[in-house]
Amino acid sequence: MNSDARGGGDDELEYVSTRRLEAFTDGVFAIAATLLVLDLSVNKLGPAISVDADLWNALLGQSHAFVSFVISFLLLGMLWAVHVWEFEHIERVSRTITTLNTLRLLGIVLIPFTTSLSSNYPELLAGRLLLPLNFLFVTLIGLIEWHYATRPGRHLTAGLSEAGIRSSRNGAAVAVVASVITVALSPWLGPWAFVAFILNPIADRIPGISRPRSRRP
Amino acid sequence: MNSDARGGGDDELEYVSTRRLEAFTDGVFAIAATLLVLDLSVNKLGPAISVDADLWNALLGQSHAFVSFVISFLLLGMLWAVHVWEFEHIERVSRTITTLNTLRLLGIVLIPFTTSLSSNYPELLAGRLLLPLNFLFVTLIGLIEWHYATRPGRHLTAGLSEAGIRSSRNGAAVAVVASVITVALSPWLGPWAFVAFILNPIADRIPGISRPRSRRP
Amino acid sequence: MNSDARGGGDDELEYVSTRRLEAFTDGVFAIAATLLVLDLSVNKLGPAISVDADLWNALLGQSHAFVSFVISFLLLGMLWAVHVWEFEHIERVSRTITTLNTLRLLGIVLIPFTTSLSSNYPELLAGRLLLPLNFLFVTLIGLIEWHYATRPGRHLTAGLSEAGIRSSRNGAAVAVVASVITVALSPWLGPWAFVAFILNPIADRIPGISRPRSRRP
Amino acid sequence: MNSDARGGGDDELEYVSTRRLEAFTDGVFAIAATLLVLDLSVNKLGPAISVDADLWNALLGQSHAFVSFVISFLLLGMLWAVHVWEFEHIERVSRTITTLNTLRLLGIVLIPFTTSLSSNYPELLAGRLLLPLNFLFVTLIGLIEWHYATRPGRHLTAGLSEAGIRSSRNGAAVAVVASVITVALSPWLGPWAFVAFILNPIADRIPGISRPRSRRP
Repeated sequence: MNSDARGGGDDELEYVSTRRLEAFTDGVFAIAATLLVLDLSVNKLGPAISVDADLWNALLGQSHAFVSFVISFLLLGMLWAVHVWEFEHIERVSRTITTLNTLRLLGIVLIPFTTSLSSNYPELLAGRLLLPLNFLFVTLIGLIEWHYATRPGRHLTAGLSEAGIRSSRNGAAVAVVASVITVALSPWLGPWAFVAFILNPIADRIPGISRPRSRRP
Repeated sequence: MNSDARGGGDDELEYVSTRRLEAFTDGVFAIAATLLVLDLSVNKLGPAISVDADLWNALLGQSHAFVSFVISFLLLGMLWAVHVWEFEHIERVSRTITTLNTLRLLGIVLIPFTTSLSSNYPELLAGRLLLPLNFLFVTLIGLIEWHYATRPGRHLTAGLSEAGIRSSRNGAAVAVVASVITVALSPWLGPWAFVAFILNPIADRIPGISRPRSRRP
Repeated sequence: MNSDARGGGDDELEYVSTRRLEAFTDGVFAIAATLLVLDLSVNKLGPAISVDADLWNALLGQSHAFVSFVISFLLLGMLWAVHVWEFEHIERVSRTITTLNTLRLLGIVLIPFTTSLSSNYPELLAGRLLLPLNFLFVTLIGLIEWHYATRPGRHLTAGLSEAGIRSSRNGAAVAVVASVITVALSPWLGPWAFVAFILNPIADRIPGISRPRSRRP
Repeated sequence: MNSDARGGGDDELEYVSTRRLEAFTDGVFAIAATLLVLDLSVNKLGPAISVDADLWNALLGQSHAFVSFVISFLLLGMLWAVHVWEFEHIERVSRTITTLNTLRLLGIVLIPFTTSLSSNYPELLAGRLLLPLNFLFVTLIGLIEWHYATRPGRHLTAGLSEAGIRSSRNGAAVAVVASVITVALSPWLGPWAFVAFILNPIADRIPGISRPRSRRP
């Protein structure tokens, strides 16, 4: 409406509630995580099973789908926890934040589809690559969003020291690195490539490349 | 219960929490946005793919569905952000607001269906027209709801100057205009007609036809 | 843990947040309302449509499903608004309230199924009866829950006069009556029987059988 | 970031909002509960029913699916109410709590699948065992999470006496015991084995093995 008192690149800065962005995000994460289960379906067990052994075998035949389900669920849980941590420190939401967050959620919403690809075509390249690429997209947008939110002049965050901003940015970069490694290894290792994501909890224990631990005042 | 102290057309005015209307709205938007992914389905890739090239081709064959998914997701994100902005300024919810909001959500809930139509019948008129018509319905109800909420005597909003109300109403009208243009062009341009929606961010930079930027006090 | 200081039938009284009961309820309503759209599906349009006229005809053939969708969505919106109004006045949640609310939500969750029955078998008795019976179940549990919550000695509600409690109980009874009438007429009228639900907005304008309008202090 | 002032095993302690963990949990429970209805589907009623008696018979043929739906819905409601009670007393969320809660939700998300198994293969061992095993997983993680949260030095909870912590831990153990009994009996009793879960409301009336009732101050 009027010109910006804080000057510089802040001209699109405006206040809308973080509360609703968080509620929308929680909803999308919760639904995407729950839709994963649709890929485990009795319809895929085959027609007319009437013997115990046949049902156990049919379920074992879905074990690849189950592994994909668990991996995607746990990674969604981890990405959600990162979002929670970040928005504990973000106080105001600008239009750019909203747009970046929408792109991040677009990536989240695709996870049930790429997980389904991974569990249906475990031996094919597209089946192996697209799930890690999907997570790479999400972590990359997350890195950009967090850099944007913590740029010094922007005053969107609160309660973070300069060192804290630096190390949390490094932490967000580690998630991107873990995604890149997973993409690179998945043609050979399949879902085992996701082991690269243990980089995240490891980094979280190293000062300087982790999200700083805040305490109750 | 008793007669109205404020007089005039306010007789159905009553206070219920905007909080729950917002929660319900966030939920419906989040679910509708997430259901869009169900249209991208491994079941549509065709039977028994076992060669890399076949899977990549099958995925490319779904590129139209992917474009429809991205368009609808981004527009849902934009419509959600408009709702957030509006309810930052709406303080009290009357029965008419609740009813108009329910109609608006009815339009939102239909988006996954009309998106699916658009991605399955990209060459047919109904496939091209119904998705933009759906968005027109939503933006039109949104315009009516916002006019209703900001009518001067009604005291439902707070923190908006008269100029702010005028320009935000114009902003809501721009969304309707963008929808109408999309409807008119989509028989010829298909999903490219949605380019008309860049009118919204353009208008948002022009004082007098945009939602005014509020700042933290 | 220990005996009850307030005496009487309050022994199972305890405080848990209405906030989370409301969040859970909003979520279930939002999801049930959104799942209704799954019944409108391109898969039902028939195989391989490639002519405009065929697609329009196929869509017209789904008009019954569309009518069922609109009816169920609007009634869900109305039942949700009633829940919002009631919990504006409920301050504390006892175990019995939680249990009754869970039963009410069980009814809500069934709506997509009974709506689907109604749209697939519009000419058969089960298709006509089960949707109104479902709404009867929900309004009946709602009536019981509201009577329980407003029983004088229980101190669960706040801000309601005795006359207000009486007329809101009558309002809840009107919803049950509307459901019973719909059940009774639906074998002959099909979805038109739902016109009985206009009793609700009518009753809402009559002092003594309506939810009293509260105003901002 | 820096070393821990409280000493001991608290080094991973940090504050993130319980609010968002609760919102995410409410969302997952609401969606899992609502997805249960997808198992009741008109598609399973068989092709081309056009006589009243046939539709009633087809619906009766789904009665087993309906019983499974009701059982799972009510148990989800109960598990949700336990989570609400626990987080009324949890004030701060550490990373371990977040991780345990994610595992608990992983179990919740699987319920629609194991319910579907139970309703489609009521006579087979896997159909009978996997739903109770799923609930056992959830109650077991719940027990661990609650023990972790209430460990004396950890200061994550508030407002609970030592006796209250003890009896609430016993209450969480009762839910595990009920699950184990259900697992053990279900090969013979099928869904009737879930009757063991009435242990929970019974225990809730016995001081020393129940969640203590809190009252409004």
